[in-house]
Amino acid sequence: MLFYDTPDPAPNPRRVRIFAAEKGVALPTQTISIAKGEHRGDAYLAVNPLGQTPALVLDDGEVLTESLSICRYLEALYTDPPLFGATALESARIDMWVRRIELRLMVPVGAIWAHTHPFMARVMPHQFTDFGESNRPLVDRALALCDAALGETPYLAGEQFSVADITLLTTIDFATFVGLTVPEDLVRLNDWHRRVSARPSAKAV
Amino acid sequence: MLFYDTPDPAPNPRRVRIFAAEKGVALPTQTISIAKGEHRGDAYLAVNPLGQTPALVLDDGEVLTESLSICRYLEALYTDPPLFGATALESARIDMWVRRIELRLMVPVGAIWAHTHPFMARVMPHQFTDFGESNRPLVDRALALCDAALGETPYLAGEQFSVADITLLTTIDFATFVGLTVPEDLVRLNDWHRRVSARPSAKAV
Repeated sequence: MLFYDTPDPAPNPRRVRIFAAEKGVALPTQTISIAKGEHRGDAYLAVNPLGQTPALVLDDGEVLTESLSICRYLEALYTDPPLFGATALESARIDMWVRRIELRLMVPVGAIWAHTHPFMARVMPHQFTDFGESNRPLVDRALALCDAALGETPYLAGEQFSVADITLLTTIDFATFVGLTVPEDLVRLNDWHRRVSARPSAKAV
Repeated sequence: MLFYDTPDPAPNPRRVRIFAAEKGVALPTQTISIAKGEHRGDAYLAVNPLGQTPALVLDDGEVLTESLSICRYLEALYTDPPLFGATALESARIDMWVRRIELRLMVPVGAIWAHTHPFMARVMPHQFTDFGESNRPLVDRALALCDAALGETPYLAGEQFSVADITLLTTIDFATFVGLTVPEDLVRLNDWHRRVSARPSAKAV
């Protein structure tokens, strides 16, 4: 296997890095620099024509993309500790929270990034600034939903740390990079963020 | 179990209906009418405070939301035929295509719906029409990606019909409802659409 990675602040490859670190797996890795435009270079486009990282190339040459699909594949190879749940119900809960984070939090964070951030002014054909700004309340609402869940259980989808926590951590840290903040009054979410950030996996490079 | 359903054109509950029909499972069902505003009524908000369908209430009262998480739970209960893949690699491929459909196709279709459709003018605080229109090329690009994949295999994620096909079918049919069309020159995608629409599950109500 060969893992195509991109350093911070890219949130998607970081998910896989944290996931592999939690499993204690060292993936053979090649770094693709977005700053240097390597993701749009011919060499990488031959690996992933979509020009995005991460990608995982299997020994027979098949290429998997999508950070969470790569994590799901690694979960099947390295079963311990289970990060997608150990029972049907745990798996469904974790999947539900992953999807909520991606659709309710990452989509509006991505819209703010794409349509309001100066860096993206160089990349986007047009920035719809007012539309981008209109996503800020959606971010706050999604963060409040997570805070409420963390009043019930220590981790987002239950008693155990899971890929839902990895998804939320990488999304919040990317949101912070974009200039968003987690409101201080979301005490449980801020406490959770300190706890998961203190895990060795959160520093995986 | 009790399944909270909403009739067409809502794409998310339909995914679960098709999934259950492919499994040959009849779910005890209660219909929530969005047209009548029942999804925002106190009775349903007590079931799902997010006010969205579908939801699956388990016998102990726990509530699962998110159409694909519900399908994943049903997959664990009713294993035959496998619709999320029978091997680690099949599962990863199917998951990858589900995510591509949702993030690359459903997100821009949803933006066009929310920001340009007259129906949503009554619902959205503000429609950013120009932003909505800017999503049309993204839809075309995602459809072309699916068409190319269907040149390799008869179904989106491989040799077998899977939940990736269900996700694509419900998304394309919703896009059609919104007024979008699959370009005629995407011959493989149009052929695939005829084939999957002819399955009895596509008519599941």
